[in-house]
Amino acid sequence: MEAYLDNSATTPPCREATEAMQEALTHLWGNPSSLHQAGLAAEHLLQDARALVAASLSAKPDEITFTSGGTEANNLALFGAAAARRRRGRRIVISAVEHSSIAESAAELQTRGFEVVYLGVDSKGRVSEQELARAINAETILVSLMAVNNEVGSLQPVDSLRRAVRYAGAPALIHCDAVQAYGKLALAPQHMGVDLLTVSSHKIHGPKGAGALYIRKGVKLQPILFGGSQEGKLRPGTEAMPAIAGFAAAAKALPNPQQALAYVGTLRERLVAGLQTIKGVRINSPADSLAYLTNISVPGLMSETLLNFLSARGVYVSAGSACAKGKKSRVLQAMGLGEPEINGALRISLSRYTTCDEIDAFLFALTEARHTLAHT
Amino acid sequence: MEAYLDNSATTPPCREATEAMQEALTHLWGNPSSLHQAGLAAEHLLQDARALVAASLSAKPDEITFTSGGTEANNLALFGAAAARRRRGRRIVISAVEHSSIAESAAELQTRGFEVVYLGVDSKGRVSEQELARAINAETILVSLMAVNNEVGSLQPVDSLRRAVRYAGAPALIHCDAVQAYGKLALAPQHMGVDLLTVSSHKIHGPKGAGALYIRKGVKLQPILFGGSQEGKLRPGTEAMPAIAGFAAAAKALPNPQQALAYVGTLRERLVAGLQTIKGVRINSPADSLAYLTNISVPGLMSETLLNFLSARGVYVSAGSACAKGKKSRVLQAMGLGEPEINGALRISLSRYTTCDEIDAFLFALTEARHTLAHT
Repeated sequence: MEAYLDNSATTPPCREATEAMQEALTHLWGNPSSLHQAGLAAEHLLQDARALVAASLSAKPDEITFTSGGTEANNLALFGAAAARRRRGRRIVISAVEHSSIAESAAELQTRGFEVVYLGVDSKGRVSEQELARAINAETILVSLMAVNNEVGSLQPVDSLRRAVRYAGAPALIHCDAVQAYGKLALAPQHMGVDLLTVSSHKIHGPKGAGALYIRKGVKLQPILFGGSQEGKLRPGTEAMPAIAGFAAAAKALPNPQQALAYVGTLRERLVAGLQTIKGVRINSPADSLAYLTNISVPGLMSETLLNFLSARGVYVSAGSACAKGKKSRVLQAMGLGEPEINGALRISLSRYTTCDEIDAFLFALTEARHTLAHT
Repeated sequence: MEAYLDNSATTPPCREATEAMQEALTHLWGNPSSLHQAGLAAEHLLQDARALVAASLSAKPDEITFTSGGTEANNLALFGAAAARRRRGRRIVISAVEHSSIAESAAELQTRGFEVVYLGVDSKGRVSEQELARAINAETILVSLMAVNNEVGSLQPVDSLRRAVRYAGAPALIHCDAVQAYGKLALAPQHMGVDLLTVSSHKIHGPKGAGALYIRKGVKLQPILFGGSQEGKLRPGTEAMPAIAGFAAAAKALPNPQQALAYVGTLRERLVAGLQTIKGVRINSPADSLAYLTNISVPGLMSETLLNFLSARGVYVSAGSACAKGKKSRVLQAMGLGEPEINGALRISLSRYTTCDEIDAFLFALTEARHTLAHT
């Protein structure tokens, strides 16, 4: 049997998403900007999709801007906010453990004259609220913090951002990259006090090629792409309807996050209990991390060797994030882990469709790896 | 029966594209950046897709960069080239009849300190080679000209760009927006002498949400999105695999352009012959425009009134481009048409799947419109 335990990299599209895409491809393939019936039907499909994604965030439909995915939404948040607020300050505050689409966008903004402050994390991968409060000053125009870290599952103190920004009197927009939290935790950006929030379709069993940026009503961003008047002129280009329709269907199919988390929590317990029986395995994720994500190390063994060994047995996990292919984990470095732990790190990421058998298959294969590879 | 004659806005996905997407959604849904078997299978799908799109342009696979569509590819071409060459000059030359994703990107570059020269067109919607040669100077870093105009079908003198750039000793990259030409004319960017060329999936019976920029080997652009190392670090974000797979399948399914054009030419003749029997109709497209696209006016009638009348009868055409929804056509203005012609313009756009019956249905409905609406 195969065990797919790399759901933080991507998830298998659910039936609902696949069916919605089929419908968008065969019947509702018009251009939503066309004024005739074929266009209007596609426009309705787009409106329905927007309403569904909005509902999944307890937001209003006009607060949802569709993008080609999480990376573009993160870019739009950072560059769009920086351009819109550049006259009010130069400082941008992010954490040291953000996804590369945040980290690299911030680095690019630095070359364009913005000041970027990187917040360190503790051994649990978590930003300190004190450090956060100290970093935000009256020239801070943007604070971006992920909800759940994509490599170790640490939850970040996103809820404290609004107070810190207010306390500093900062003209800052608050952005949250919620790609790894979406569908796994109840997210209501309005109640979280964030202005901007990124979600992605293919991490919630929707197709690749769609994502969205929640933009709180009244918040103005500058576009990063130019052309037609789609998405309120903020994101031009013919809407990627099959993917957007699939995304919305996947959002609609999301179960109650608490119920799903309770189930995934039992899988995590089974996983952790099993790992504790395998000699030398170290769990890098903090105990209070999101149960969907568990980062471990098998010191003495290299991630890639392990990955290949497991993959050959139909067990699919990853070493850090898929987007960082081959690079040393910035996240584990920021958490203060040593070289052996970083070089031997594995990420096991679950979904609501993961089974006990898959956990057991992983544990069995890892035990085998531990015996076989440790002697070579 | 329905008559879909708005193929320049979007096309119905072909069976090949829909099937390839289904496969990408149900079996090959891995993340191409993942190092395990599920990732490698997706990576192979991506490689195959790249090879197929490259083959459709007689290009090499590593000259193809996938984007979310034509608009993003045009943005990448303009901003990417301007950033890469900004130390060698400030002038950018485009035509007055480019798609909004070129025109608006150029306008944005103008606000960032670049000089944009707009080339006018003659009454046939065509840029003059003389004016083009005069506009390109030694400070010109980018020339962008569309292959086929999206509203009237005029062919532009793209083949003359290389000579003009060379003659001026300009450090210019040459870009061609070939979205409306792709699949309809044989395109080989290398032989056309262009460095960059934009194509889109959903205009060739592929899905929305995918496009590509051909980048001649050795040409360096700056990215416009930042993050992971996908697409040679030029276009980060998890690849939109279902759309890319569908795009490639549609590219593979493209017939010989000459044969398809011969067939579409007979449809155009039938259309033009029919139009000539309807009083007051003026054909705005030049006689030598691409047969796929015919722009007409019914002076005295407003485009929108006509569109709605036809749409109610299942006949789908457009007024200008779908992306310019409601705005007055820049193209027809540049061609020197009068207000009545511009306000009453319709675009009839065909595909290789268009039938004689659809042409006849349009002619019948237009005749009816002419009689009914002219008296109201």
